[in-house]
Amino acid sequence: MLDVCLLGTGGMMPLPYRFLTSLAVRYNGSTILIDCGEGTQIALRKKGWSPKPIDYICFTHFHADHISGLPGMLLNMGNAEKTDPVYLIGPKGLTQVVNSLRIIAPELPFPVYCMEIEGHDQEFTLGDLTIRAFRVHHNVVCYGYSLTLKRQGKFDIAAAEALGLEKRYWNRLQKGETIELDGKTYTPDMVLGPARQGLHLTYTTDTRPTQSIIDNASEADLFICEGMYGETDAKEKAKEHKHMTFQEAALLAKKANAKELWLTHYSPSLVKAEEFMPGVRSIFPNAHAGKDGKSRTLKFTEETD
Amino acid sequence: MLDVCLLGTGGMMPLPYRFLTSLAVRYNGSTILIDCGEGTQIALRKKGWSPKPIDYICFTHFHADHISGLPGMLLNMGNAEKTDPVYLIGPKGLTQVVNSLRIIAPELPFPVYCMEIEGHDQEFTLGDLTIRAFRVHHNVVCYGYSLTLKRQGKFDIAAAEALGLEKRYWNRLQKGETIELDGKTYTPDMVLGPARQGLHLTYTTDTRPTQSIIDNASEADLFICEGMYGETDAKEKAKEHKHMTFQEAALLAKKANAKELWLTHYSPSLVKAEEFMPGVRSIFPNAHAGKDGKSRTLKFTEETD
Repeated sequence: MLDVCLLGTGGMMPLPYRFLTSLAVRYNGSTILIDCGEGTQIALRKKGWSPKPIDYICFTHFHADHISGLPGMLLNMGNAEKTDPVYLIGPKGLTQVVNSLRIIAPELPFPVYCMEIEGHDQEFTLGDLTIRAFRVHHNVVCYGYSLTLKRQGKFDIAAAEALGLEKRYWNRLQKGETIELDGKTYTPDMVLGPARQGLHLTYTTDTRPTQSIIDNASEADLFICEGMYGETDAKEKAKEHKHMTFQEAALLAKKANAKELWLTHYSPSLVKAEEFMPGVRSIFPNAHAGKDGKSRTLKFTEETD
Repeated sequence: MLDVCLLGTGGMMPLPYRFLTSLAVRYNGSTILIDCGEGTQIALRKKGWSPKPIDYICFTHFHADHISGLPGMLLNMGNAEKTDPVYLIGPKGLTQVVNSLRIIAPELPFPVYCMEIEGHDQEFTLGDLTIRAFRVHHNVVCYGYSLTLKRQGKFDIAAAEALGLEKRYWNRLQKGETIELDGKTYTPDMVLGPARQGLHLTYTTDTRPTQSIIDNASEADLFICEGMYGETDAKEKAKEHKHMTFQEAALLAKKANAKELWLTHYSPSLVKAEEFMPGVRSIFPNAHAGKDGKSRTLKFTEETD
């Protein structure tokens, strides 16, 4: 399962009632953060999640509202006695930006590794979880991220019995281990059914609508997408600033056949996102205006058979 | 007069209920900021003060909690259409730190000038206002700041009449202009009494008690001083981390014969500053626990004669 929290929903600048857009995802004891603007550490604390297990921070791009909170967050992780490494993922130039910002956070009790994204798409694998960066279209190089959690097939008792393998080895096989025994090799695929449906979360901000978003958010359980402007007549402004309207985000969700859409990254001038939602839902019914702290636990679908 | 607002009162890290310590002072259309940690721009907006008139930002030192909000604040000032320069004042190395942090705020519609403090004390004059930086004692180079506003003497009507100068020149003389007329030179001191008591504000954080603080806060109308720890038995911890207890701050206020003391820069673990105040007031009666947004307008004393 993936524990998801939209820590903030603002664009450009943090406001007294709205933190900057950032997503935290908890999986298997690790926290993955996407973007870290000024105040994200406050939003995380408000949610009650510790900074210590943050093992990955993915950056969409280097505009200040998406990375200005990094030095404070790193220091905060240090104060929480983190000692294991943190991996930062972002566009080319990440190392230089991070090193430059770390002039005020030079000493940390854990190593910081920067991984710069090569090309238009790149995948980073963390066990069963894959973080996939995909290029979107902003006025600087910018990436969206998909997090997908694989789910293996059901354990096939009949197949295991047919192998003649003692029961005490079953659990190791199910957990992915290959067993060598009496000159024979037993592999997990021998006792597992076809892979079942996993979990799929897609997050993108600071972009015009792109085919890459539709492709990457295809069938997503949750699609979190920027909506800088609520007004239907703001499309020209959105084009100029390389952002999206709520309606454009809804159309992407529809084309991607996502299961649910959360909007985020509102313009500072946008006060009540909710008032634009009826129009948005006429395009994509399961659309929701993101709010700071909006959370969801994404779980595997229960098997019915 | 000086409009003073303690924007935040926290040390180390911003909290959901406490911004990082920063002071804003409005004088004659300009705003002077002392320190700018992560979230200071939110605190300023919460107070309802615009970032546009910020003309000076003074930094006590370069620990992240005192400067991490700089890139966001500069961008915010730019969004507010500031075009006139901002002057940054701070310890040696300021230019390098600012340039490094500006990797995420490279383009601004106004010039940024860095002024590095030379030696143990330095004064910066802005018309009638003097900003005086004075060295304090932290684990890195750190300065306190005194803001003093001069007040000229009363206009002496009898003296002006005795000069035989036409009344229409009086106002210009009173405002500090020298008048050349019919071969004679009239200077302001000819019509002004002795300088009257001005205003004096002293601000210091991140330091052990020092003689320089007592000297610079001498007779201050308002003395804003760090108090990292409220507990009377925290002195050893305060010594170790080069901070102060509330009681040590109160003793400084007493020795300086300041008129009023506000405490600030609380440890994240300190929740209720108020509960320590009875003990603090037994040392210095006019002591107050600072709170985010605590404000005061310092005015010239009314003349009684």
